[in-house]
Amino acid sequence: MTVESQELRFRTHREGEILDITDKTQTVIESSRMRNGVAVLFVPGSTGAITTIEYEPGLLADLTVALERLAPKDASYEHEKRWHDGNGHSHIRASIIGPDLSVPFRDKKLTLGTWQQIVFLELDVRPRDRTVIVQLVGE
Amino acid sequence: MTVESQELRFRTHREGEILDITDKTQTVIESSRMRNGVAVLFVPGSTGAITTIEYEPGLLADLTVALERLAPKDASYEHEKRWHDGNGHSHIRASIIGPDLSVPFRDKKLTLGTWQQIVFLELDVRPRDRTVIVQLVGE
Amino acid sequence: MTVESQELRFRTHREGEILDITDKTQTVIESSRMRNGVAVLFVPGSTGAITTIEYEPGLLADLTVALERLAPKDASYEHEKRWHDGNGHSHIRASIIGPDLSVPFRDKKLTLGTWQQIVFLELDVRPRDRTVIVQLVGE
Repeated sequence: MTVESQELRFRTHREGEILDITDKTQTVIESSRMRNGVAVLFVPGSTGAITTIEYEPGLLADLTVALERLAPKDASYEHEKRWHDGNGHSHIRASIIGPDLSVPFRDKKLTLGTWQQIVFLELDVRPRDRTVIVQLVGE
Repeated sequence: MTVESQELRFRTHREGEILDITDKTQTVIESSRMRNGVAVLFVPGSTGAITTIEYEPGLLADLTVALERLAPKDASYEHEKRWHDGNGHSHIRASIIGPDLSVPFRDKKLTLGTWQQIVFLELDVRPRDRTVIVQLVGE
Repeated sequence: MTVESQELRFRTHREGEILDITDKTQTVIESSRMRNGVAVLFVPGSTGAITTIEYEPGLLADLTVALERLAPKDASYEHEKRWHDGNGHSHIRASIIGPDLSVPFRDKKLTLGTWQQIVFLELDVRPRDRTVIVQLVGE
């Protein structure tokens, strides 16, 4: 059993951007010494999140609507009253979706469905330089 | 440290079906060579989800109501406008609940609470043949 | 590769209490034999949840509002009709947020962001003695 750690690094461009990071994650596995195990993805930061979705433009728009339902941008936030950075809703959405995702891999391949992609959600209100940790545990 | 991978396979019968997969998951651990570790459950597919709940009929009905609140079935979905498969809400619910669950096990036993079960949520609008990956990492 | 298991134990005082368990989790890693791996946190029980948030009073209040939006306390719950323990909303909130969180660690340090803490959410309606399992897998 071994542990290998790599980082995905990218720049986001706007609030609500949804990035498909499946290929980058698959590449981490391919470049590792491991054949079978689990890829644990984690966002260090409290205004980004990771989940899976069928990555097509319709659903990306629908997810944006659903996030607005979870924590409306124009609601009143105590965070805003104290810090005035305009991203109270970003934090709340991130806490509900969650910063982590664990995906098994077998024979060096993520066990995703055919129409299922791993996505990073930029929930903050401004462009950010983002890092996602990919920790592999396996053999 | 080793990795073992098994699959749970079952057929669902209707949208909103909530299946208790606790016993099946416990059986995977019992049939493995491992004593302590983590069971990582993962749904390959973008219209199913995994979480835990106290598996009693009242809460199963309540969860269905809550999922409708998260992503109402009769809302307008861009996914529907493009693909016409009637399951835009299914995808969105699945992305919010999430496709993965990690449960520690010790002495070959899942560390669940007494009234806590692992459940698969069939969020799609039609019966499906489903697979859940159970990846064990441990020793 | 090894597995180590510890438990965080604490008493909660009221519904909606949000406890910062980052330091306790970091201490588990420091006291272990492991340098790199993943910390899997899990709540045995169906009315508690784990996520991350920037732990400041504004956001803690905002998260409480968002949980009320997810599953309002004064809505009608089938669970309540059967069991009369007043916590139908607690169960539903817990199932949506989820009982598990996986955080990578490197060089004996959690890979959290600077303003990101690990939190336990007491979603039940009364004080509880709580246990959170911290299962480390790594080397």
